[in-house]
Amino acid sequence: MNQQKKTAIVPTREENYSEWYHQVIKAADLAEHSPVRGCMVIKPWGYELWEHIKAYLDKRFKETGHQNAYFPLFIPLSFLEKEAEHVQGFAKECAVVTHHRLEKNEKGKLVPAGELEEPLIVRPTSETIIGEMFSKWIQSYRDLPVLINQWANVVRWEMRTRLFLRTAEFLWQEGHTAHATAEEALEETHRMLDIYVEVVEKHLAIPVIPGEKTARERFPGAVNTFTIEAMMQDGKALQLGTSHFLGQNFAKASNITFTTQEGILDNVWTTSWGATTRLIGALIMTHSDDDGLILPPHVASIHVVILPVVHKEETKAKVYDYCATLKKQLTSLQYLGVPLRVMVDQKDMRVGDKMWGWVKKGVPIRIEVGPKEIDEGVISVFKRTDAPKASIKMSPEEFTKNVCAELEEMQDELFKRATARRDARFVKIDTKEEFYKYFSSEESKGGFALVHYNAEHSMEDKIQEDLNVTVRCIPLGLGKEEGHCPFTGKISHQRVVYAKSY
Amino acid sequence: MNQQKKTAIVPTREENYSEWYHQVIKAADLAEHSPVRGCMVIKPWGYELWEHIKAYLDKRFKETGHQNAYFPLFIPLSFLEKEAEHVQGFAKECAVVTHHRLEKNEKGKLVPAGELEEPLIVRPTSETIIGEMFSKWIQSYRDLPVLINQWANVVRWEMRTRLFLRTAEFLWQEGHTAHATAEEALEETHRMLDIYVEVVEKHLAIPVIPGEKTARERFPGAVNTFTIEAMMQDGKALQLGTSHFLGQNFAKASNITFTTQEGILDNVWTTSWGATTRLIGALIMTHSDDDGLILPPHVASIHVVILPVVHKEETKAKVYDYCATLKKQLTSLQYLGVPLRVMVDQKDMRVGDKMWGWVKKGVPIRIEVGPKEIDEGVISVFKRTDAPKASIKMSPEEFTKNVCAELEEMQDELFKRATARRDARFVKIDTKEEFYKYFSSEESKGGFALVHYNAEHSMEDKIQEDLNVTVRCIPLGLGKEEGHCPFTGKISHQRVVYAKSY
Repeated sequence: MNQQKKTAIVPTREENYSEWYHQVIKAADLAEHSPVRGCMVIKPWGYELWEHIKAYLDKRFKETGHQNAYFPLFIPLSFLEKEAEHVQGFAKECAVVTHHRLEKNEKGKLVPAGELEEPLIVRPTSETIIGEMFSKWIQSYRDLPVLINQWANVVRWEMRTRLFLRTAEFLWQEGHTAHATAEEALEETHRMLDIYVEVVEKHLAIPVIPGEKTARERFPGAVNTFTIEAMMQDGKALQLGTSHFLGQNFAKASNITFTTQEGILDNVWTTSWGATTRLIGALIMTHSDDDGLILPPHVASIHVVILPVVHKEETKAKVYDYCATLKKQLTSLQYLGVPLRVMVDQKDMRVGDKMWGWVKKGVPIRIEVGPKEIDEGVISVFKRTDAPKASIKMSPEEFTKNVCAELEEMQDELFKRATARRDARFVKIDTKEEFYKYFSSEESKGGFALVHYNAEHSMEDKIQEDLNVTVRCIPLGLGKEEGHCPFTGKISHQRVVYAKSY
Repeated sequence: MNQQKKTAIVPTREENYSEWYHQVIKAADLAEHSPVRGCMVIKPWGYELWEHIKAYLDKRFKETGHQNAYFPLFIPLSFLEKEAEHVQGFAKECAVVTHHRLEKNEKGKLVPAGELEEPLIVRPTSETIIGEMFSKWIQSYRDLPVLINQWANVVRWEMRTRLFLRTAEFLWQEGHTAHATAEEALEETHRMLDIYVEVVEKHLAIPVIPGEKTARERFPGAVNTFTIEAMMQDGKALQLGTSHFLGQNFAKASNITFTTQEGILDNVWTTSWGATTRLIGALIMTHSDDDGLILPPHVASIHVVILPVVHKEETKAKVYDYCATLKKQLTSLQYLGVPLRVMVDQKDMRVGDKMWGWVKKGVPIRIEVGPKEIDEGVISVFKRTDAPKASIKMSPEEFTKNVCAELEEMQDELFKRATARRDARFVKIDTKEEFYKYFSSEESKGGFALVHYNAEHSMEDKIQEDLNVTVRCIPLGLGKEEGHCPFTGKISHQRVVYAKSY
């Protein structure tokens, strides 16, 4: 703990946001850098978050008719080349497999051997290999739609990496669908974007802005890319999921054809959509405070941790028994359709250290109970969303009665806090001067700027060069508004969101 | 359908077992070869099997205190080299990443560029990279045991591949644990073997023989490897899961040390254990018949499929309504703690084709119902374990009342059938002549031979060379028996299982 500032994380968000982020991850034991350049190790407390996120997404994918499948890790170079924009988008960051064994050279040193006839790319995304399979599976309109999802690892060789946000290897899901009409494919693109909005807002308690990407920010090969963008506590944007309408581009590249109901041979219309372990980074950066991680109850692997407070050996049995009984009562409760997740921490360690450990791990509710409390018939209840030492005493019966409602309230509270924080830094800007001042001056910390935009005369390159600010999206729910782009004076029918981003 | 033999799969098991296996996979739409050499595509009906298997294993791993985590896909060559036997075991089948981008050469052709200083191996298994992390995480006996599991893809460059059984890339789980004592690590090795036995026998309905591998068959770098071996319908053995006691070999290689309770610095004792998508191959080869796949109810993605039999348009609504109501009643039932999985197949297709489709996909129970049945108040019930057209008529109420018990009976029945088939080909052999005849003559189809064995004077190389037969395991439950190795005449204290294998 930082004695001066009484915070468990050093530095604080205010002092150094980026370093604070890494210290929160370290203190909560979520992940760490591996000795393999750019690849991280996701530790159990972090991986469990991914398991919860996966479960929510997977359920919604299946409810909307999608089926999981698995495609090869490797993509032949010739496949990647089939879509011109696509290969250009990924060529600079590909892990390339060139050999299939190791052999001792004359010096007795193990070196790559068995050169492959064609190099294989470790998938950065799977449109081309899945497209190849679709071309075999699809013949007629009767075979459509094909609605597939894959849970997998992908590799994009990034030079500058950051845990969860940008790593050479990451885990994700990639949905790939094929449809008979453009309308149906576009509908699917929006349906999946809506599911991302729903899961991220409802379960991760992160408010997002769904929108369309500008041409410059599109997925390589897509006709249209939709995104959900969230604001982190430093005012920067983080893209949390994307859904692409691919038109017939990949269908043409992979020769995916079908006979229509009218007997005409046509290319299918495809979509793809993905969300990654980056969601864990978003969760950390949205909710954590200067004492560490705060977990929204919907994704907490432990909802309630019970700390037995024992100073004398002779009271140990009594307190432990009491805690075991309390745990049993609590785990008999159903929260979100499954038993409440409760743990008694009996580790041989000072209560103060234990307590800070759980604060830093972000467990929603902590209970402390010692012999005195037992005699008084009360327990001390600490909520992670309150100050770390602010407790309420209540009877275990009262706690048990209210704990699930209390967790739901915390879930709401976290969403409201994040929304309020974002809305406080959501500004409308109408002049170039104001815009440059907003994103460059020291006192303004930046945020999301709603600015008029004209797609045909975009200044996005220049603005990124000057300020490192980009158009995050053309928000879907915003509605039309007449105006002029402040950079070019050209006519504009809608504002877009500009921000710095991760 | 094969009109002559009236079987849905051609060839039959009898005619060509290996081709039958591929045709069963194709007919059930479980998986197919991809255009990437040695890599398969697992299709939805196959992937769902993996999801069920994963869920059963994962539950048991967590109940026994293990936590999931995720480690890098890539292993630096120098890491793999740390354990001498280990690298030797995998050097011949490694996918090697040597470059990190693509660049156009003078001819405008995309070629690998950005050569890596050190080649990276796509993990064939993760002992060395996980060992490196353990060496950072473990300092004291207080940090032990460390009980980690990873669900991941791995790559072993196989020259001859077969769907599910042997592919260059496959999906698996790999458990990795570290302990303070040899006893504890050995106990863990056995605990995980027991879990494999339990899950495979109880849920996949495949009887297995748990045993110890001989030195020749050990995992590269292990002190001791334990295995579960099952017999396929052609009498060959298939290894379904292994659990390795690694001693201090990998701890020494990766320098994983800890301070004991007595204050002494020592290496930890480690284990690793894994099971793969090969389990799906085992499932197919154990239970399927000449009409295709048969799914044990515990892993069936659909327990009951309802086929509306409609010959006239005017009865369609009535039959569809009836089927919808029946489905609703059935899905309100709980089977294995979750709602019964029921589907009404309303596809626009002839009932005969539909019926054979579901037979080949192995769904446990099929119901056919038409206007006549509705008027009579009955439904026709077909069990996949009976002949494809053998039905029992009963009232929907009676069916609903008994369906879960019926499914459990089918699960048992499949296990019993497989056990009986195996036991019929389980022989004791005491002479070399008999052994060679058993495994080489045309009329004998081979199977599992229980034979005396002396580890110090093993003839395993010679026997494999002559007959392609190996020691599958030294069975754990068999007990001691004095005798002599029939090949060397040396004294033996226990019989072992010899067999041909996949």
